[in-house]
Amino acid sequence: MEHTYYNSWLSYFKKPFGSLKKGETADFTIYVPTNAAVQLFIHHEGSTLGQEVYQMEEVAKHHFHFPYRLADGKGLYFYYFQISEEIEHGKKIYYYGAREDLGGEGQIYGTQDEVMPYQLTCYEKDDAPLEWYRDSIFYQIFPDRFFNGNPAKNVDSPKPDTFIYGRTTDEPYYVKNAAGEIVRWDFYGGNLLGIQKKLDYLESLGVNALYLNPIFKAKSSHRYDTEDYLQIDEVLGTEGDFARLLEEAHKRGMHVILDGVFSHVGRNSVYFNYSGEYGKDVGAYQNPESPYYEWFTFTKYPDDYRSWWGVKDLPEIKKENRAYQEFIYGDVGSVLAKWNEMGIDGWRLDVADELPDEFIQGLRHNLDSYNEKVLIGEVWEDASKKISYGKRRQYILGDMLQGVMNYPFRDLILQLLQFNQEPKMIAEKFMTLSENYPRNIFFNNLNNIGTHDTERIASLLGSPEKVNLAVGMMFMLPGIPCVYYGDEAGLTGGRDPENRKFFPWGDLDSQYYKIFEKWIRTRKEYAALRSGSFSPFYTNELFGICRTVSEETFAIYFLNPTGTVQTVHATEMTFAGESPLPEQVLAQLVTGIRIPPYDGYFIAREDDITIRLS
Amino acid sequence: MEHTYYNSWLSYFKKPFGSLKKGETADFTIYVPTNAAVQLFIHHEGSTLGQEVYQMEEVAKHHFHFPYRLADGKGLYFYYFQISEEIEHGKKIYYYGAREDLGGEGQIYGTQDEVMPYQLTCYEKDDAPLEWYRDSIFYQIFPDRFFNGNPAKNVDSPKPDTFIYGRTTDEPYYVKNAAGEIVRWDFYGGNLLGIQKKLDYLESLGVNALYLNPIFKAKSSHRYDTEDYLQIDEVLGTEGDFARLLEEAHKRGMHVILDGVFSHVGRNSVYFNYSGEYGKDVGAYQNPESPYYEWFTFTKYPDDYRSWWGVKDLPEIKKENRAYQEFIYGDVGSVLAKWNEMGIDGWRLDVADELPDEFIQGLRHNLDSYNEKVLIGEVWEDASKKISYGKRRQYILGDMLQGVMNYPFRDLILQLLQFNQEPKMIAEKFMTLSENYPRNIFFNNLNNIGTHDTERIASLLGSPEKVNLAVGMMFMLPGIPCVYYGDEAGLTGGRDPENRKFFPWGDLDSQYYKIFEKWIRTRKEYAALRSGSFSPFYTNELFGICRTVSEETFAIYFLNPTGTVQTVHATEMTFAGESPLPEQVLAQLVTGIRIPPYDGYFIAREDDITIRLS
Repeated sequence: MEHTYYNSWLSYFKKPFGSLKKGETADFTIYVPTNAAVQLFIHHEGSTLGQEVYQMEEVAKHHFHFPYRLADGKGLYFYYFQISEEIEHGKKIYYYGAREDLGGEGQIYGTQDEVMPYQLTCYEKDDAPLEWYRDSIFYQIFPDRFFNGNPAKNVDSPKPDTFIYGRTTDEPYYVKNAAGEIVRWDFYGGNLLGIQKKLDYLESLGVNALYLNPIFKAKSSHRYDTEDYLQIDEVLGTEGDFARLLEEAHKRGMHVILDGVFSHVGRNSVYFNYSGEYGKDVGAYQNPESPYYEWFTFTKYPDDYRSWWGVKDLPEIKKENRAYQEFIYGDVGSVLAKWNEMGIDGWRLDVADELPDEFIQGLRHNLDSYNEKVLIGEVWEDASKKISYGKRRQYILGDMLQGVMNYPFRDLILQLLQFNQEPKMIAEKFMTLSENYPRNIFFNNLNNIGTHDTERIASLLGSPEKVNLAVGMMFMLPGIPCVYYGDEAGLTGGRDPENRKFFPWGDLDSQYYKIFEKWIRTRKEYAALRSGSFSPFYTNELFGICRTVSEETFAIYFLNPTGTVQTVHATEMTFAGESPLPEQVLAQLVTGIRIPPYDGYFIAREDDITIRLS
Repeated sequence: MEHTYYNSWLSYFKKPFGSLKKGETADFTIYVPTNAAVQLFIHHEGSTLGQEVYQMEEVAKHHFHFPYRLADGKGLYFYYFQISEEIEHGKKIYYYGAREDLGGEGQIYGTQDEVMPYQLTCYEKDDAPLEWYRDSIFYQIFPDRFFNGNPAKNVDSPKPDTFIYGRTTDEPYYVKNAAGEIVRWDFYGGNLLGIQKKLDYLESLGVNALYLNPIFKAKSSHRYDTEDYLQIDEVLGTEGDFARLLEEAHKRGMHVILDGVFSHVGRNSVYFNYSGEYGKDVGAYQNPESPYYEWFTFTKYPDDYRSWWGVKDLPEIKKENRAYQEFIYGDVGSVLAKWNEMGIDGWRLDVADELPDEFIQGLRHNLDSYNEKVLIGEVWEDASKKISYGKRRQYILGDMLQGVMNYPFRDLILQLLQFNQEPKMIAEKFMTLSENYPRNIFFNNLNNIGTHDTERIASLLGSPEKVNLAVGMMFMLPGIPCVYYGDEAGLTGGRDPENRKFFPWGDLDSQYYKIFEKWIRTRKEYAALRSGSFSPFYTNELFGICRTVSEETFAIYFLNPTGTVQTVHATEMTFAGESPLPEQVLAQLVTGIRIPPYDGYFIAREDDITIRLS
């Protein structure tokens, strides 16, 4: 019984690897070195079929096989094995399932109650990758905090009752009253013209795509409290400024995506009009006859209404409302239509978990009519198995999101470099994500080591050396790297608002800049980093990533997350899944490589030329 | 006994009126309509003579007289009368003193313990009035809140960690942390160039003198936390800007006085250097060997130090320190020397009560060497009898202050117009102040109906009608009127910070503007308002002020502080003191004048022409 073995990451036991498309067949094989009968227990979540049980065929001595066709369609399938071993006068029944939420090698369970099933993701439709998107190096800009393009550095059209920082070097500060409520929004005065003026800087850094935090009219400086979806915020500039920014970006081969905040609006939006600044008859709060009234959920009109996480400043939208859907993604005159037609290249969906699948599908259909526009969702967990509001989400199973912000990758990078978790565990967790996501989604995910919602990487890791390792990981991983503005300048800071300092023009930390510039260049230079298959590995002390296009074209990155020098030989490398390269290739390359503390080692082979960077 | 009578405001009973100069003689007469002996009890405060007692001479039946020479010098003399009435088999002793703190008519007291003495102020030296000063209409400017002269409205050299208001129409707001401490100073960006650009506006309003709140380098926007006495605050502009402002003001015949804040400095001044921004060796806090160390009082070095009213941000200066005195008012290179030589016309002394007489004298001597420079003190009470830190102040008894900010006048204006106190009481309180102050000081005081330290007059009184009465009173009263910036624009607001809104250029309330403009013009037109003797009067319902140069040149202002129409005849007018005009003059002019509710009525006669304004 102790030698019973199954490993979802090895093709002998399961093929194909990872998630499958609807209608495809998963070939399961399990090794049970006793006289036994083996059954596959499999359940398509939400299906009316209930638990399905299949007798596995002993195709060779102790090797049991069953080909399972995902006929029931998309969603998550959960499976495990029941082994009935013959013993004297009877049989012994036990189970083989996954180790907690990890794929790969599993473990024996004594009872059916305890067994943790393996996850098998089934998607509906393959998302053909957008070529420009797959080759992108994104740069996330929080517009108020990047650059003020006005020659006199004056702020255009400041809003009433707001504060402007005396200097761009001031620390961000929320102005709150005694009750802890924000009473004046704080602006540095970054604007669209400023971004345009810094396109040359971004180009020389190597960036070729921009993700802009919200730019529509709003009250706050973060602008997640939309006031008008159809207007550029006047502090940022005009619609003309935005058109010019797009034009200048596109001229440089850069793509631009916007932040779509469709789950809620600002209390003082034209739609809700809480304070009545749009007039006494306009908006849901002022007038129950308002065309917007049906967008909101009033438990007691007008003061009790549903709001985002109970934040009264952000009334929640009833996304099921047809008029709202039409307003956001209708064919003509909608929010998406307006900005898409102006030439943006896609959207990052704020709080995708708060948007029903149907709504996300509506957005996607709108975008599909344009071609080449991307739709990425904000999801903080493994999106393949995300449950929100009691419902398993299907937004990455085809026809909805093309990818999600890859916060789980960030978590693993920090687990390795900040919390010193074992390289083996890190490799297995990466492998599990690789298995759970539809392949194209996995390669479409927008990776980050920091955003406007997290602590700055420089503060978390505390040194350029460690940040170099983190950036290296992000650029080695499948998916699209996205650099949070200022990380390349060495900006520090804890959570909001500290992570939203103004970009330190004139005071960039060149150590950090060089790290980002180097990894961006490396990513562009080696196709393996963009399209190679993904094989995380580990030794006793090291973590590593191998990206393989072929035996001739691949890249390997070794990280030493320890404070001591490590020397590595090919024989010490253990891949979480199958080795992507023949033993002799590795044996030839990895021959006692010496890696200083908190340093990395990069090898790339392309067209028979081997490059080593350390 | 009930007919015993003395009245310090009538020349029959006391002459001369009011305060006297050292060595002069006060002639006291009291009427005691019984067979009695009368003694004058008089005591020069602080004198070694103790209580002096003089037998009064019965110069006519029941009229007792004593000429008292103020030989002991300056200070306050307190006096009352003891009457020993002959009765059968003995005598009855009683006293005659003042009604509480009022002069004028007094009252009988049964015992010596109870008696409230009259105050007789004796000054050392007559302060010859400065002609320009006496003819001034002042305008107080809080520099951050007046006007930004930069064409793009950008703020010059904002300080680190400060906020700038998004709009000049924003309400002022102190940015405090959870502990209630101010953590970021707030600026609108008014500057010296802005004042210069508005000189034409001020000239057309009729203003001919400016009092500027602090302009020296400081951390806050109020700048009472001086950082460097020898530098113009960089947010306000340069020394060149200030020189140009002076030049342009003088060109228009305007004088300019500055706010002298010498009692304390800012914690982060070059002198104290709490946060070390001036280096690790500079300033008293960083270095006990600092030349500034002796300026401060450390109870435990360095963290326990004396500060202004316990505000740790404002370390208090030891004004007795000779080096500090030399720094502030030495002949060469001192603070006064620098700015006086640049051409300012005087100083308003912040918290004069906190400055020792010796220090004020030092300032005055410095100023006297220039001629024509004025020194006005901030005092909130009747300065003639102010006690601070247990010591009676002598700063208006000659050779020190030329006048004080006349907050007691403001109090009386509000008592009449806001709190509906009886006109009789108001008149008597005005008369008491007139009696207590040395005459020249009384005529030098800087009157106000609002400053940066008080609620706005428009908010207190609530209507232009009442504000018109308040402004009328200020302009009718002896002393120099000082208009707080924006009162003429109808600015509202409670105490700090509401009283420090930005001047509403482009949105002036013309009702208010016309009130100020009219009264400024009236003051300039009629000499009586500037130099006439002061005679407050009252009827049952009305309050009034008469300013008299001669029987041919005088001005009278009647105020109706009630909500009903009042009609007044000359016979109803009661002067608190002696009538300044013959009965027939008044009888001719005041013949059933009808005054609407909350309105006034102004009569001036000059060179036999009578002007009536209502």
